[in-house]
Amino acid sequence: MEIKVFHQVMDWNEDVSDEIKKDLSDKKVCMINVMGSPGAGKTSLITEVVNKLSGKYRIGVIEGDIAGQIDAEKMKAMGLPVVQLDTDGACHIEAMSIQHILPEFNLEDLDVLFVENIGNLVCPAEFNIGESFRVAILSIPEGDDKVEKYPLMFSTTDALVLNKYDMMQYFDFDEKRVESNAIDVNPDVSIFKVSSRNGDGMDDFAKWLSAEIDKRIK
Amino acid sequence: MEIKVFHQVMDWNEDVSDEIKKDLSDKKVCMINVMGSPGAGKTSLITEVVNKLSGKYRIGVIEGDIAGQIDAEKMKAMGLPVVQLDTDGACHIEAMSIQHILPEFNLEDLDVLFVENIGNLVCPAEFNIGESFRVAILSIPEGDDKVEKYPLMFSTTDALVLNKYDMMQYFDFDEKRVESNAIDVNPDVSIFKVSSRNGDGMDDFAKWLSAEIDKRIK
Repeated sequence: MEIKVFHQVMDWNEDVSDEIKKDLSDKKVCMINVMGSPGAGKTSLITEVVNKLSGKYRIGVIEGDIAGQIDAEKMKAMGLPVVQLDTDGACHIEAMSIQHILPEFNLEDLDVLFVENIGNLVCPAEFNIGESFRVAILSIPEGDDKVEKYPLMFSTTDALVLNKYDMMQYFDFDEKRVESNAIDVNPDVSIFKVSSRNGDGMDDFAKWLSAEIDKRIK
Repeated sequence: MEIKVFHQVMDWNEDVSDEIKKDLSDKKVCMINVMGSPGAGKTSLITEVVNKLSGKYRIGVIEGDIAGQIDAEKMKAMGLPVVQLDTDGACHIEAMSIQHILPEFNLEDLDVLFVENIGNLVCPAEFNIGESFRVAILSIPEGDDKVEKYPLMFSTTDALVLNKYDMMQYFDFDEKRVESNAIDVNPDVSIFKVSSRNGDGMDDFAKWLSAEIDKRIK
């Protein structure tokens, strides 16, 4: 007799994610799920990009954090509508939390909503949160083996942003390896090499973002 | 103006966990959530303990795995009713999955249900699955800093089992540090030092398990 095998399908999370997606699509709001390790530069990247896009779009931010609101304060200082989501120790954001938070924004007055996910390369990738698309950040100091080690994160993202690219000379980081690994698991991924510190590559990334946003809200 | 802060409460998981708990309590079944890193010895520990307790209790097993069913085959070979839960890459088991699986067992003919959770020290600790109590395994080769690094796992467990204790002489493992850290975050925790390989300490652990089980089903 065969052993009966059940599959854990996170139905309820997927259902809520689909509801959010439909709601945001109806209201012409593009939600961007930004993921990466702790310290990869998620907040800095969002900040840089908001500076470049805020003339063109009305932008809001949901700041996910295990605890504390340092990042939310930074966004607020830029004059953005921001809501903090404190996961109280949990390793990822679930769709239900986003659904609870959305009424806090005036969605009619918003074009783009960035969600800064929890710093973690594993769990956030497993949970759709109703996003229009995903951005995964990998910073040079983290090492060039990360795409192989965390395939789900890098196979489900729309853009791979190699951040802290100005540090390449100080690290033994084989960018060809990362690019080839990323394309292996995700042939359509767009790859960017940027530095939040000196701004290099940020124009190209902002241009790509803008085109992706326009596809969803125009 | 303050930044509005939302807390991610995993209500639905908690609700389902409570339903399971009530159901199992009504049916006098004790469910034990066994957690620990990959390779800590979860399967071996369950196997050893089943050998000691199977004369006294009717035992079933839910084998959680990211993929594959090697562990479930081992349990089946012991003649136990076993169901495999394949999380398809997810880092933890959710209560909803357990609720889907329970009807596969004839609960009237069961006293004890072991759930072998996914090998991971972070995420499984965040999700109650309707268990009567928890067992966390830490093996000596993993190192003596794990209680400090993963406080949620060790603060929410009822028993801490230090496995592979026969390997103490080969590792720089400060057991006093682990015990004191564990008691700091979890004053009521019961600590056991065992070896699945040579059976040391297993009688004490089985005796404790038996007393805990009796509290729930008698």
